[in-house]
Amino acid sequence: MFTVWFTGLPASGKSTIAKRVEEALRRRGLDVENLDADEVRRNLHPKLGFSKEERGENNRRIAYLAKLLNKHDVVVIVAAVSPFEEHRRMARRIVEEAGRFFLVWVNCPVEVCKARDPKGLYERAERGEIPDFTGVSHPYEPPQRYELRLDTAKDDPRTCTEQVLAGLERAGLLQPAEAGTGREREGVALTPEEEEAIRERLRQLGYLD
Amino acid sequence: MFTVWFTGLPASGKSTIAKRVEEALRRRGLDVENLDADEVRRNLHPKLGFSKEERGENNRRIAYLAKLLNKHDVVVIVAAVSPFEEHRRMARRIVEEAGRFFLVWVNCPVEVCKARDPKGLYERAERGEIPDFTGVSHPYEPPQRYELRLDTAKDDPRTCTEQVLAGLERAGLLQPAEAGTGREREGVALTPEEEEAIRERLRQLGYLD
Repeated sequence: MFTVWFTGLPASGKSTIAKRVEEALRRRGLDVENLDADEVRRNLHPKLGFSKEERGENNRRIAYLAKLLNKHDVVVIVAAVSPFEEHRRMARRIVEEAGRFFLVWVNCPVEVCKARDPKGLYERAERGEIPDFTGVSHPYEPPQRYELRLDTAKDDPRTCTEQVLAGLERAGLLQPAEAGTGREREGVALTPEEEEAIRERLRQLGYLD
Repeated sequence: MFTVWFTGLPASGKSTIAKRVEEALRRRGLDVENLDADEVRRNLHPKLGFSKEERGENNRRIAYLAKLLNKHDVVVIVAAVSPFEEHRRMARRIVEEAGRFFLVWVNCPVEVCKARDPKGLYERAERGEIPDFTGVSHPYEPPQRYELRLDTAKDDPRTCTEQVLAGLERAGLLQPAEAGTGREREGVALTPEEEEAIRERLRQLGYLD
């Protein structure tokens, strides 16, 4: 099993794409859990803040949950700002104890994120109402190691979702959708010899010329 | 799916029985996670202490993990002192959002636990080296609501494990072991009419007199 971990600035599009990927994977018959970073905070450590150390703690806990679920054959989707390279590497190490880790860098210029700002968080952060806000008063380290980079200022959510699914297929984590039904799905694709034998039989029966 | 939550004093036998129940359920083909309370502490909140409030936090977090796993068809086993009725009720409420909650009270007189004391914790607590130690300097509230009570001063771990499995069967959470193999397991037991029709056919074919 595997964990798809989306990292990026607030309002870069992480959650939107994570939600679409979650639904696409479920349609392909996978058991999926979308670990919403805010919900995990609320349930596991409501009093945790947003200092570098506390963000690391949050990432570590989410990674532990992801590992636990991967171990039981549940695909995990995570959308978390996770702005520090060292914390992302730690999350990778933890998840890899039980599954594979697929890091998606949701890249978007901070100016575009600020212009979107669907929850008005950048505005509040710039007024000084939210301390340690990534992109305003807290750094975001662009990933050095990642499996896929999306550019959400250029590509729409649908395109980005397709890029993620294609990336998972290339990494061998997901069966191509074309092979998602029928015999191939079960790993019983015909050999060329078998296929020829069947064609021959159909020819004998008059179904093929 | 369901969570079996063992509550009781330190050294009452919770972990020993939990481990045996885990193995028995796995032998019956279930996907099982044994959420060791110490491991959860280490992974989720290493700095959390043992005050009443912090114990409540710990119970809440374990319950959240259990809920998440139950949601994905994983049976969860928890062994946690969980000395307060209000925290056990909270854990029940959380788990019941996704699965069923089966509380096992591992009852054992504190004198017997102290005499066992496999890790020497009671001794250290009595020397004042461990603060807030349940049974010495911290209270244990006997459960008012529970699904099963074990008496580990009287019954050995094997007997207690059988009592838990029988309790889970009575509660409809577990198929009786006798029906654990063959057709009945799949819910396709034959009706008397079908059985007679098959016997008749076998007779015709000369397999039966």
